[in-house]
Amino acid sequence: MMRGVLLDLAGVVYDGEKPIAGGIEAVAALRDACLPLRFVSNTTRLAKPAIVAKLHAMGLDIGTDEVFAPAAAARDWLLRHRRSPHLLIHPGLEPEFRDLPRGGQPAVVIGDAGEAFTYSALNEAFRLLDDGADFLALAANRTFRDGDGRLSLDAGPFVTALEFATGRHATVLGKPSVDFFLAALADMGCEPETAAMVGDDAEADVAGALRAGLATALLVRSGKYRPGDETRFDPPPTAVVDDLAAAATWIIERRGP
Amino acid sequence: MMRGVLLDLAGVVYDGEKPIAGGIEAVAALRDACLPLRFVSNTTRLAKPAIVAKLHAMGLDIGTDEVFAPAAAARDWLLRHRRSPHLLIHPGLEPEFRDLPRGGQPAVVIGDAGEAFTYSALNEAFRLLDDGADFLALAANRTFRDGDGRLSLDAGPFVTALEFATGRHATVLGKPSVDFFLAALADMGCEPETAAMVGDDAEADVAGALRAGLATALLVRSGKYRPGDETRFDPPPTAVVDDLAAAATWIIERRGP
Repeated sequence: MMRGVLLDLAGVVYDGEKPIAGGIEAVAALRDACLPLRFVSNTTRLAKPAIVAKLHAMGLDIGTDEVFAPAAAARDWLLRHRRSPHLLIHPGLEPEFRDLPRGGQPAVVIGDAGEAFTYSALNEAFRLLDDGADFLALAANRTFRDGDGRLSLDAGPFVTALEFATGRHATVLGKPSVDFFLAALADMGCEPETAAMVGDDAEADVAGALRAGLATALLVRSGKYRPGDETRFDPPPTAVVDDLAAAATWIIERRGP
Repeated sequence: MMRGVLLDLAGVVYDGEKPIAGGIEAVAALRDACLPLRFVSNTTRLAKPAIVAKLHAMGLDIGTDEVFAPAAAARDWLLRHRRSPHLLIHPGLEPEFRDLPRGGQPAVVIGDAGEAFTYSALNEAFRLLDDGADFLALAANRTFRDGDGRLSLDAGPFVTALEFATGRHATVLGKPSVDFFLAALADMGCEPETAAMVGDDAEADVAGALRAGLATALLVRSGKYRPGDETRFDPPPTAVVDDLAAAATWIIERRGP
């Protein structure tokens, strides 16, 4: 029985600046089957309004409240723990943190900063962590599929670098955080046992969702997928399908009464 | 019985641009006790002639052939395996690789590149590794004591970042490589069972030397040492002493007949 679906965005719904063939129609088909959807993205190079605008420009029917990205989880964490962010993030994400209180106890917040990952910025973050600052990672993905179609370094390698240097562990707020998956499910009133996740990252999307208790996690052969990914992480995907269109068909067939 | 001594340089003999108090005299005392010495350094921001010149300027009596640094081990590896280096290193180390053949199968060579660790350079190295290039790390130290007296990120965190991204393991050529320790010992005709290592890095210097089979490894409380380092890595140091002067006294007392 399927009562709700979580979809990754980059590599599943779109690739670079274009929707993946059949993706827009697949989202519409899931909606037509009355399956509530949430889009759970670890993309941390754009603020949420920019993500939603990009999706609208591609012709995707999507509401702002349907998108879950790690920056909002980080904002909640910072406010709840009364910490001031020390940001090691992409300039495109900075608007998400602009109005937070400054000057308090620091928490280092790391995303996929891209070219903003300079030695100086990493070393400054290291020294703050070494002095006891809290350690938040928006995501810990190893790679993403870049604009030129090749894999590029995502936030994960840099989080790992700072973990190795400090001997500490980051709190990851995006996928594969159990809280992140459960917050998206709770928002649509769906239990993990009746939910499915669709992603192109066998580790953060698929193994992560299954570890969070979701009954089903489908790995698509689009985006960053490479042959062999399905056996690289534990637990393995419920099924491997070509793309979001095939995933939607798979899910709708198992929708149940 | 002691028949040979390996000394780390940064944090043991000197700190920044100055010799550590009593260090020059301690080296002289070890020489007076007829103990052969080799200086085994993971510093990869300077070519060997520049290291030796720096030590001479500090008043240290040292021969070029007494200094072992990872760049020479990397050169040997590249020539032996007929690989062309793709360098992710500090500009100060580039002279060491200038005359090597280019255009062959690539090997990524990573040192403490400092500000040369840009996202673009790391991503370029990642893509080469992902395409199957060999993966050499000159060193994998977590941190070093920087000019301002604080710890800064060394090569290790960046090596770890690329290991995490690629799912591969780097071949480390400097300390704690067993081959590196044994090459320095062989050069002075000393067996590991009669050798001592003195260092401020409880992991690469001390645990590394003991794993390579050296009978003795002393941790000094100078350089990057912090209280607690002596129990942080396995095996623990043979003894913890204040500085190189105390280490020299400790070793000379146990010199034997």
